[in-house]
Amino acid sequence: MTIAKTPKPPYFAVIFTSVKTNNDKGYKEMAELMVALAKQQDGFLGIESARNEIGITVSYWKDLESIRNWKNHVDHKVAQKGGKKEWYKAYKVRITKVERDYGF
Amino acid sequence: MTIAKTPKPPYFAVIFTSVKTNNDKGYKEMAELMVALAKQQDGFLGIESARNEIGITVSYWKDLESIRNWKNHVDHKVAQKGGKKEWYKAYKVRITKVERDYGF
Repeated sequence: MTIAKTPKPPYFAVIFTSVKTNNDKGYKEMAELMVALAKQQDGFLGIESARNEIGITVSYWKDLESIRNWKNHVDHKVAQKGGKKEWYKAYKVRITKVERDYGF
Repeated sequence: MTIAKTPKPPYFAVIFTSVKTNNDKGYKEMAELMVALAKQQDGFLGIESARNEIGITVSYWKDLESIRNWKNHVDHKVAQKGGKKEWYKAYKVRITKVERDYGF
């Protein structure tokens, strides 16, 4: 996991913040599968993820349509259902437009 | 650390992604001080943070002016300088506008 190499803005970011349940059964496999699958989607630009007390995953996308398509992807829908039922106590998804970036 | 209780969009998010050096001297103190200080700023709405391989801190703000003021805050400038010199191998800052959010 490294800092995502995203293009010059504007582009879009989905901030997914979550609190896990104690149930880890199947979680790691599903999480890894979703990252692999996201990477194959049109408009995918990169992903960053970290977890200790809470988890934050930020995925980067070319446009809102790519985000919508990924949200509605059949396998992703199954994962979302499992997430609500088994793995997450709470989560929040924020759809954002990246207007500016810098770094070193 | 919990999921930030942010208001109805639109609002703004600063995604700060970083890779640490092995130098932890003074890091924790400075990071905690910066969170405490950010919370006192006008326009601050919340903060979320997680770290394992990489660190992701997302702070939420009312508007771009609040973000600009926080970026230029004297004590924050000192921390940024220390960050570049001592604590971070690399980082990226992304200024984003939150257009939509949902969760459970």
